[in-house]
Amino acid sequence: MLRSCASRLRTPGALRGRLGGAPPPARDSRPPPRSFSSEVIYVDHSLPNPSWSKDMRLLFDQFMKKTEDGSWKRLPSHKSVSPQRTEEVKTFFPDAKPIKEHMSQAQLFPRSLEEGLGFEYAMFHNHVENRTVCIFQGGPYLQGVPGFLHGGAIATMIDSTVGMCAVLAEGVVMTANLNINFRRPIPLCSVVVINSQLDKVEGRKLFVSCNVRSVDEKTLYSEATSLFVKLDPKKSLT
Amino acid sequence: MLRSCASRLRTPGALRGRLGGAPPPARDSRPPPRSFSSEVIYVDHSLPNPSWSKDMRLLFDQFMKKTEDGSWKRLPSHKSVSPQRTEEVKTFFPDAKPIKEHMSQAQLFPRSLEEGLGFEYAMFHNHVENRTVCIFQGGPYLQGVPGFLHGGAIATMIDSTVGMCAVLAEGVVMTANLNINFRRPIPLCSVVVINSQLDKVEGRKLFVSCNVRSVDEKTLYSEATSLFVKLDPKKSLT
Repeated sequence: MLRSCASRLRTPGALRGRLGGAPPPARDSRPPPRSFSSEVIYVDHSLPNPSWSKDMRLLFDQFMKKTEDGSWKRLPSHKSVSPQRTEEVKTFFPDAKPIKEHMSQAQLFPRSLEEGLGFEYAMFHNHVENRTVCIFQGGPYLQGVPGFLHGGAIATMIDSTVGMCAVLAEGVVMTANLNINFRRPIPLCSVVVINSQLDKVEGRKLFVSCNVRSVDEKTLYSEATSLFVKLDPKKSLT
Repeated sequence: MLRSCASRLRTPGALRGRLGGAPPPARDSRPPPRSFSSEVIYVDHSLPNPSWSKDMRLLFDQFMKKTEDGSWKRLPSHKSVSPQRTEEVKTFFPDAKPIKEHMSQAQLFPRSLEEGLGFEYAMFHNHVENRTVCIFQGGPYLQGVPGFLHGGAIATMIDSTVGMCAVLAEGVVMTANLNINFRRPIPLCSVVVINSQLDKVEGRKLFVSCNVRSVDEKTLYSEATSLFVKLDPKKSLT
C-alpha cells in the first residue's frame, strides 16, 4: 500500500510566494546570535556568507546569472518552519505524536550547524526542465573517514535536493525510497554540485535521480535514485 | 571495477583495544567546554548523559546487561580520530586531497551537534552473530518535516550502524551502496532501535541489512540494505 511505504512529508508551503530571481543581498558577516527568535530562524541561509570558498561563490554567481531570464529560480532556505506548515503536516499524520516539549528548539537538520562548520548550500530550480541543482560545501563537522565527508552528510544533501525537486514538480509528497551509489570519497570542505532531475511520474509515484560531481564536472562522486509518493490532501495517512 | 564503485573507508583502528563490557561511568552532567583540546575530543560519547530520555536509559541498561557474559560489547564513540587513523586512510587514497587548513576543526559528523540537540546514540556488537545494534535518540536539531526526523538524519545513523557492522566483521571496508526504504516518519526526540546484520560475504563484497523500529518493536520505521567492499591494505585505490 502506498500509504505504508511512504516516509517523509514534503510540502511546497514553505516556498510559496518566496521564489525570486532578483540578486540577493550578501548575508551579514558577523556570527549570528545564539537565539531562537523569529528574527534569526527566518533568515534566508542560502545566500553567500564569509565561510563560502571561492569555488562556492563562483558557482553561486553562475547560477544567479541563470535566474536573470526567469528560467531558473533560487530557492530560499530557513532554519525553522512556519506554524502554518506544522498544521499542514497534521492533516496527513493525525495519529503521529511529535514530542511537544522539544518543539520550540526544533531546527531544520541541514541548517542546524553553525555557519561554515556544517552544510553550506544553495539550491536552484528550473521548473520547465523539472531540475533542481544544489551547490554544496561540506564543512569540517561533517567528517566521516578522516579528511572526507561522512556518507550520512552526503545522503542528507542528496535527500534534500531530490525532495525539493519532487515537491516543486508535484506538490505534497513523501520519500519512499533512497538508493545511493557511492563512487568516490568527497574531500572535507570541498564544493560539489548535486544535479537532480524528475525522470517520470506514474500515477502517484515520482521517480527522481541525481548525481554528485566536482565543480569541474570531471569527478563523479555519487549517484542516486529516489521514489516519492504524491499525497492527497483530503486523505490522511493513518 | 570494485575500486571505482567504492566510496568511503572504514577502519577498525579507532576501535582496536577499546571494546569493553565493564559497566561505564555516567558522563558528567555539566555542558562540555567549547574547545578542541584532545581532552574533549577523545571523550567517549556513547555513555548516558542528562539529555537521554527514560526509554534511552532503559534500553542502554538492557544492552549493558547483555555485555556481562561477553556475548555483546559496547562500542565507544569519539568526536575525533587519532593521527594514526588519518595515516591509515592515506594508504588507500594517496591521490585524494583533503583540504588541510580546516582539518584541525574536523569532527565526526554524528557527534558534531551539542549534547541532546542532535544524535544521541550508543552501539553494541555481537561478534558471534555478526550483529550491530544502535539505540538512537534524535534531538530537535534533526528535524525534517515539522515534528519528525529528517531523512538524512535517519540515513546517517543507518550508515553509521551498518558500516560499524561491516568493519567489525571484515576489517577495512568502503561503502559502495546504501538503499533505504522509509516506511513511516520517526517523531523528533523519540528513541528507535537500529538492528543490523551481516547477511553474506562474497569475495570482497559484504552485504549488510538493517531495520529501524520503535522501542516496543511494534512500529517498523525503515529498512535498508547496504554493500561494502573489503580493501586490501597493500593496494591503494588510485
